[in-house]
Amino acid sequence: MTKTKEYAEQLRALGIENMYENNFFLTWDKTDDEIAAVFAVADALRDLRERNISTKIFDSGLGISNFRDNSTRTRFSFASACNLLGLEVQDLDEGKSQIAHGETVRETANMISFMADVIGIRDDMYIGKGHAYQEEVAEAVKEGYEDGVLEQKPTLVNLQCDIDHPTQCMADMLHIIHHFGGVENLKGKKVAMTWAYSPSYGKPLSVPQGVIGLFTRFGMDVVLAHPEGYDVMGEVEAVAKENAEKTGGSFTKTNDMKEAFRDADVVYPKSWASFAAMEKRTKLYGDGDFAGIDALEQELLKENATHKDWECTEEMMSLTKDGKALYLHCLPADITGVSCKEGEVAASVFDRYRIPLYKQASFKPYIIAAMIFLAKVKDPASALEELEKRGQDRKAF
Amino acid sequence: MTKTKEYAEQLRALGIENMYENNFFLTWDKTDDEIAAVFAVADALRDLRERNISTKIFDSGLGISNFRDNSTRTRFSFASACNLLGLEVQDLDEGKSQIAHGETVRETANMISFMADVIGIRDDMYIGKGHAYQEEVAEAVKEGYEDGVLEQKPTLVNLQCDIDHPTQCMADMLHIIHHFGGVENLKGKKVAMTWAYSPSYGKPLSVPQGVIGLFTRFGMDVVLAHPEGYDVMGEVEAVAKENAEKTGGSFTKTNDMKEAFRDADVVYPKSWASFAAMEKRTKLYGDGDFAGIDALEQELLKENATHKDWECTEEMMSLTKDGKALYLHCLPADITGVSCKEGEVAASVFDRYRIPLYKQASFKPYIIAAMIFLAKVKDPASALEELEKRGQDRKAF
Amino acid sequence: MTKTKEYAEQLRALGIENMYENNFFLTWDKTDDEIAAVFAVADALRDLRERNISTKIFDSGLGISNFRDNSTRTRFSFASACNLLGLEVQDLDEGKSQIAHGETVRETANMISFMADVIGIRDDMYIGKGHAYQEEVAEAVKEGYEDGVLEQKPTLVNLQCDIDHPTQCMADMLHIIHHFGGVENLKGKKVAMTWAYSPSYGKPLSVPQGVIGLFTRFGMDVVLAHPEGYDVMGEVEAVAKENAEKTGGSFTKTNDMKEAFRDADVVYPKSWASFAAMEKRTKLYGDGDFAGIDALEQELLKENATHKDWECTEEMMSLTKDGKALYLHCLPADITGVSCKEGEVAASVFDRYRIPLYKQASFKPYIIAAMIFLAKVKDPASALEELEKRGQDRKAF
Repeated sequence: MTKTKEYAEQLRALGIENMYENNFFLTWDKTDDEIAAVFAVADALRDLRERNISTKIFDSGLGISNFRDNSTRTRFSFASACNLLGLEVQDLDEGKSQIAHGETVRETANMISFMADVIGIRDDMYIGKGHAYQEEVAEAVKEGYEDGVLEQKPTLVNLQCDIDHPTQCMADMLHIIHHFGGVENLKGKKVAMTWAYSPSYGKPLSVPQGVIGLFTRFGMDVVLAHPEGYDVMGEVEAVAKENAEKTGGSFTKTNDMKEAFRDADVVYPKSWASFAAMEKRTKLYGDGDFAGIDALEQELLKENATHKDWECTEEMMSLTKDGKALYLHCLPADITGVSCKEGEVAASVFDRYRIPLYKQASFKPYIIAAMIFLAKVKDPASALEELEKRGQDRKAF
Repeated sequence: MTKTKEYAEQLRALGIENMYENNFFLTWDKTDDEIAAVFAVADALRDLRERNISTKIFDSGLGISNFRDNSTRTRFSFASACNLLGLEVQDLDEGKSQIAHGETVRETANMISFMADVIGIRDDMYIGKGHAYQEEVAEAVKEGYEDGVLEQKPTLVNLQCDIDHPTQCMADMLHIIHHFGGVENLKGKKVAMTWAYSPSYGKPLSVPQGVIGLFTRFGMDVVLAHPEGYDVMGEVEAVAKENAEKTGGSFTKTNDMKEAFRDADVVYPKSWASFAAMEKRTKLYGDGDFAGIDALEQELLKENATHKDWECTEEMMSLTKDGKALYLHCLPADITGVSCKEGEVAASVFDRYRIPLYKQASFKPYIIAAMIFLAKVKDPASALEELEKRGQDRKAF
Repeated sequence: MTKTKEYAEQLRALGIENMYENNFFLTWDKTDDEIAAVFAVADALRDLRERNISTKIFDSGLGISNFRDNSTRTRFSFASACNLLGLEVQDLDEGKSQIAHGETVRETANMISFMADVIGIRDDMYIGKGHAYQEEVAEAVKEGYEDGVLEQKPTLVNLQCDIDHPTQCMADMLHIIHHFGGVENLKGKKVAMTWAYSPSYGKPLSVPQGVIGLFTRFGMDVVLAHPEGYDVMGEVEAVAKENAEKTGGSFTKTNDMKEAFRDADVVYPKSWASFAAMEKRTKLYGDGDFAGIDALEQELLKENATHKDWECTEEMMSLTKDGKALYLHCLPADITGVSCKEGEVAASVFDRYRIPLYKQASFKPYIIAAMIFLAKVKDPASALEELEKRGQDRKAF
């Protein structure tokens, strides 16, 4: 039995009929079966590509990307995913300004979507706005489809919002699954999602939130650690708690980085701005108060600087399970003495985990492709088998 | 008989041999048969796509876009059209500056066209220049082809110039044809192409010009209405008059918006700058007189502001045939109380026509694709039949 | 026997096994057989395209471009080459700033390459840095491939560095080969690679260097002429000397433009900045000394202006073999009275050679495609024959 057939069998055992023609906003909107399906399809697509078998399911069609914040990794991941499936990427370049909502969003969403099969949006800058914007776009094209304006309903893929970063966190999790040899081995593993010092400010909350919202579904013991005042959104903490209760894992919080690292199997030390600060900044942007923003930045940098001890050093790593926890980062990391004077992680730690880190990142294009595949293909299991049977070379010679 | 066969039969009855290897600059360069062919191919391509049948006629090749003015709608329409036919879009980003003419144009046109099958250009900012530039580019690549520099002759598609906006106006017209149930039902219908107030200034003349130049070919009664001083190009009015005489319709002018709206079947209220103002601005840009441009802008905005009563209100709409004229706009519209304080159209009117407006826009990708198809395919009728017979899925599963 | 079969036979006679999975940095890294193979494949791909036969060897996959200096010609050539082979271009837009090296380069290179089959880089601004950067990227993705991060090893194609401009110079040479009716007719032909005056400053050295490094391999008498102080890199001159000795040609230098032009069969008059000036500028950029850069620019422009007599005039051309040397330029040229007041070449000379110049440029997309083809296809001779046999139309109707 080929791997493709194995993945197809896995899919057939899952309840995933709601994924067809649906969107991907937040991992906690999805059932366990749906999450499992994304992993299965991601692995299946990767296996086919590794065997030089084309996974193009589209002969033509567009994938629209809209990056309302800088991006290199996710931009290339989205482009790779679209290309892998046969879609051509068109970028909607709106700039980073807070653009109009309501009618303008509805109209633009439809105007760019006449031949769009997927829309990928990154909008992580403003608390309370990114996810709302994505929902607005998805609702607009759904209406457009129902009203006969659009011939197909584009799927929305969240490429990072203010709440979640599902393509990142699911790539992280697939990496963990492969690292520990299967999802069945994750129960009881301890994960430390911790804040870390960075000389920059205002990094989005979507990664720590996405991690606690997703990792708690696998029976793991997830610890969220940060200095006082760097809280994430309460609603996501509630999701994490609920998940942990259901799966027999746990979700705890601490203001002590060492406590989080102690005996951890996985560590994810990463800087972020506090929810309260992000809210303040969002309001200042809304008011166009740029002096206020500058003042806030100075204040936050000063506050950050009081927590330079939140660094993933060799000493910290030595606290982890056998001193060998799997170190994760969404990249780019602020590496002490390399990309900055003092940062999130010691150079020697980062360097030791370089290859695993790159592998972690390598899952993202496949995760995105899987999200699109599951939204666009009515019978994904059979489609995978058909692709294998079709056996078209990706590279001909 | 499939729709494809019907469209193929329609095409076979038309004299369209001059379209092959030709360009699309202005609708009034084209015969009635050629205009009808664009509509037939646009509808045929759409029908095939709706039946999930691929219309890729290119296995590889580039579509070059050159937007010398901002664009979202037309940019995505061009990208969609190219993708639908199998061409990959490459954007030539020259910025909005008035670039050099003569040798530089000739050279650049050839340098980017070694593998280009189509070049789409928007150049609508400068009166007397946009169309001339497009002709220059088309002449350059024609020479390049004849001299053996290029292996194929790229087709030029006018994505808006200073004179006409054929992809927009033909999309508008195809929308009207579908709305009234066929081109045979248009005779005697009254169309009001009217100026409307906008808080911005300097909108191109190409839409009103394109509309009067095209709509008068269908035996309709076309009224052009604007405040005194907002005249469009005289040469296009002459085209409209001549068209009207030939087809038994009429072309009239008025400075009274109500007169235009009275008993109209179709209304197209939209802001534009006057021809004289655009000429002045073009000269100032040529002289690099930016203070002069600023002064002109202030003057024109002040002038505009004396015509705020030129708004498509409910009261205005009530004057139209049964109060139910088809409302058109090329989008985005300046909607009173929505996208601006006072604008071209009342929010309630716009909202009532939202879906038809989006449908109107949805024809543009197919109109562009049809223009390319007719320029690139020697026997378009048979090609459509072959595509249907080939029956390749656009989406495989 | 078709041309395809002839080219395949030529390839079979060449030792090119090292090209597979390799990069293309500098022409002098490559053996004579490898250079010959690029020309053969370029001609073969062009012949297939002219016969409307698809040369797509990829069903999906990305071609990454990274232009760290402005480019229109090379950008479109790279896009055309990728499209011709079935790859979609994704541009990595880093801006023109001198970006970080070391870890950052390694990481970014891997992050964008998960589905990349080729990476094309232009980095010609800074002496001592462009080539080094390209090697760094190539090394990074090689490591990524070996470490299992990347499923395929992207090929690096040098789209111009501080040392060489191989895609340009090989296009130039293929043009010469066709002009003189074959590589066997080049022995003893005189080539004048000369400096010429330009009102701009700081043009890269890569073209003159690439020309003397490549053209000396064909038994030609290559003369490098420039005013005192406009020397190119000594290491490249050494390459040219060594080449000339091996092939029975010659490489000489002069400060007299007329001496270079006298009896020349080929002339290539073109402006460049001196090696010393480029080194100085690189240092100033490194120091962020923008006042120093401005001062240097003024100094260099003043120095340039003392050499306005270095112009390719009709008088100069009359010195060449029968007054009819083949005039080359990488374009765009500074044409006296056309693109500038006083420049590299007289308008009448340029105009007489316009068509050959455009043809010269037309080889570049095929040269780039050939470089990719030879790096990606294990048995290029058989692959060409297979493509012919497959006989898929590039344009279907």
